[in-house]
Amino acid sequence: MASNKLKTYQAFCQNSSTGMTRTLIKETPNKIGEPITAKGWINTVRSHGKVVFFDLRDRSGILQVVLTPEMALNYKEEDIVAIKGNVKERPSKMVNAELETGKIELEATKVELISKSQNLPFALKDTPELSLPVLLDYRPLTLRAESVKAILKVGETVIDEFRKTLKSLDFFEFQSPAIVPTATEGGSEIFKINYYDTSAFLAQSPQFYKQIMAGAFERAFTITKVYRAEPSVTTRHLSEYISLDGEMSFIDSWTDIMDTCEIIIKNIFKKVKESCANELLLLKASIPQIENTIPRIKMREAQNIILERTKRDNTKEPDLTPEDEKEICQWAKETHNSELVFITHYPTKKRPFYTMPDPDDPDYTLSFDILCRGLELTTGGQRINNYDQLVENIKKWGNKPEQFEFYLQAFKYGMPQEGGFAFGAERIVKQILGLENLREASAFPRDMGRIDGRIANNQ
Amino acid sequence: MASNKLKTYQAFCQNSSTGMTRTLIKETPNKIGEPITAKGWINTVRSHGKVVFFDLRDRSGILQVVLTPEMALNYKEEDIVAIKGNVKERPSKMVNAELETGKIELEATKVELISKSQNLPFALKDTPELSLPVLLDYRPLTLRAESVKAILKVGETVIDEFRKTLKSLDFFEFQSPAIVPTATEGGSEIFKINYYDTSAFLAQSPQFYKQIMAGAFERAFTITKVYRAEPSVTTRHLSEYISLDGEMSFIDSWTDIMDTCEIIIKNIFKKVKESCANELLLLKASIPQIENTIPRIKMREAQNIILERTKRDNTKEPDLTPEDEKEICQWAKETHNSELVFITHYPTKKRPFYTMPDPDDPDYTLSFDILCRGLELTTGGQRINNYDQLVENIKKWGNKPEQFEFYLQAFKYGMPQEGGFAFGAERIVKQILGLENLREASAFPRDMGRIDGRIANNQ
Repeated sequence: MASNKLKTYQAFCQNSSTGMTRTLIKETPNKIGEPITAKGWINTVRSHGKVVFFDLRDRSGILQVVLTPEMALNYKEEDIVAIKGNVKERPSKMVNAELETGKIELEATKVELISKSQNLPFALKDTPELSLPVLLDYRPLTLRAESVKAILKVGETVIDEFRKTLKSLDFFEFQSPAIVPTATEGGSEIFKINYYDTSAFLAQSPQFYKQIMAGAFERAFTITKVYRAEPSVTTRHLSEYISLDGEMSFIDSWTDIMDTCEIIIKNIFKKVKESCANELLLLKASIPQIENTIPRIKMREAQNIILERTKRDNTKEPDLTPEDEKEICQWAKETHNSELVFITHYPTKKRPFYTMPDPDDPDYTLSFDILCRGLELTTGGQRINNYDQLVENIKKWGNKPEQFEFYLQAFKYGMPQEGGFAFGAERIVKQILGLENLREASAFPRDMGRIDGRIANNQ
Repeated sequence: MASNKLKTYQAFCQNSSTGMTRTLIKETPNKIGEPITAKGWINTVRSHGKVVFFDLRDRSGILQVVLTPEMALNYKEEDIVAIKGNVKERPSKMVNAELETGKIELEATKVELISKSQNLPFALKDTPELSLPVLLDYRPLTLRAESVKAILKVGETVIDEFRKTLKSLDFFEFQSPAIVPTATEGGSEIFKINYYDTSAFLAQSPQFYKQIMAGAFERAFTITKVYRAEPSVTTRHLSEYISLDGEMSFIDSWTDIMDTCEIIIKNIFKKVKESCANELLLLKASIPQIENTIPRIKMREAQNIILERTKRDNTKEPDLTPEDEKEICQWAKETHNSELVFITHYPTKKRPFYTMPDPDDPDYTLSFDILCRGLELTTGGQRINNYDQLVENIKKWGNKPEQFEFYLQAFKYGMPQEGGFAFGAERIVKQILGLENLREASAFPRDMGRIDGRIANNQ
């Protein structure tokens, strides 16, 4: 029987090494004058004749190592090594204020190979200069670059703070299914699955499931993948993306939903600012400004403002164009010092069948988008909670109520006033960081032309 | 422009109502002698001639309401109402010790309808007696039953504690993709997708992606859906389930991975015990026992123990049978007072190509399962981290290395010793709660015969 002496929780937190005890790089500034062993990837090599510098990288940071040319001889970038040495203060003129370990360095006494890298297709530090296709072709490698890790760290923080905020507001977290029986929300942008002897589809949204959950738990949220067979390649769409969805019942007004969204996005911005200060610095990014509250205007009002500002007359259009979205964000910034704006009251015909019409003006809905720096981050609104009205609308939209039997149960057996919202996680990251392409905000983006490798190469 | 007066965060936490301010049911025991308004579903109706009792249900609990027959006349179960009244202490003989609001009741002065329910197919309180098909046919309704909500609450807690533990151990959370390019891990149990002009598949596991992430972040985890086209209906399988996956590099030994799993499962049990005491009581369930540590035995040792105990000779079999799994769990309970057991060293031929063979006995692997109360909860092991050895094994398993080009990059450019694990979230819930069928642990279970409704009905 195998040994049962467990490594303690403490041991796992502090280092992952027993024999030659590993010191994590972030701990090295507290070890001046001590011998340590650091383990990690060689991030860069700089040779200065009689002395060679490695930047060693582990999960906690980057450490400058000083070696003799002999010690450094057999190593190159991305080789993984264990380095024994002594932690020393750097000469004052060598201090690097931008690095957490910038005041110290490791004077190596011994280097041991852990794993050898093959020759790199490009230097890892050049990752920010790569074209998008190359960045993604070599994703397992480029994920190691500080600039890419910083983007993903911001993404993790956005999702965590969404969850934390919703839980603090008494929302129940559930896991929404990906495999769905019918192409319910309409549109051709849906992926079909061979499901045993029949067909099924990949969920375009958790809409029906979050409404069902709001009928059981009052407030429910899910952080889930959704799937869109986007027929064109844009900088703003992915075939698989992370949707941050919430639904709340017993609302007093549809504005409760906007208020909740405003709490969420402000919390997310605050948290990213606090927790990702280094990442924001590295990526030269700043949190979108909201001076006080996010302005709320009707779509028709927005179109009139745009007409006034640009002489572009889109006042009869059923939706804002991408240029309109940019222009109205500019207006919000200039007049309200807010880089976000709520656009409300989209036309009934342009929204799904379950959207609540405005009782004062039924051609428009109690629905909204949040735009941020020219891009839609969020969509939401109040839903029809009356069973008969919902069945009526399903028919009006050209569908058969029988196909919605499962979903309709949620309304058949009592449903209060309710509504909800969905944030695109990668879009929040893109807009905070000013990324050019949404794909950069995803660890493993999928689109028409790519699943990991380029599609042609996968066949 | 719409009003910009936001509802405060505080207002959302405490109640969702403004006009007739709503008191959540959990707050009512602190309101004795006060007039309040409660809002929720009528859970049960009991008529006693001159007086009628409602049990009112909201997201926070259940409240007894006393009404005159006239007030109660037009209402039945699952109708949603707002009830004005006064909170009173119950007569001592009417106190219900099992209910958090068991010492008080609401004496109604006014009832207002919020939403009308149609006639119910069964009384909601009878949900625990329903057959599984009926329980699932009416899922939007049965999700409202206390017994079902209790199961999902335990599920939420299991997932939260997995995340919390991994984060405290410095693991980075990422979102693993569902759409994958090739049926990489082999087997026919994979769903095919029509992906634009080509085909793709639904991920059977996040294996490759978590290994890639371990090459960038050292420690990474993901909470993700995985998809298995299980060709038969069992009580232990779902077509879509939640996998709790972790991967860690810079391990000193493969036992580090087991130690980590032991920390995780103990934390989960502890948290469920603390946070879900009411749910465990309601479902008459108890946390699996682990007196000290979880015993660890080789698969061959387990087979010999089973032979001794039962005279059943499976010592030449390449895996444990379901009966063997039950028997060895019984042994662990009797001899180690542990309802969990690690089974290690599965045969190399029975494990995927990336599994590390035991250097002392290469026909067996440095891999393990955790069994709990007769069922596998977890699988894990050390992986091959050497590029050449991995390429060799891909060929040996009958695959083409070109198909794994993306994945192989993680090893081509330096990868330390690493390994990982996967827990089935619904299985943990099933084994804690002693559920008969894994489907009960999923909000919206999918299998050969069902996606929401039964498959035949969806066509």
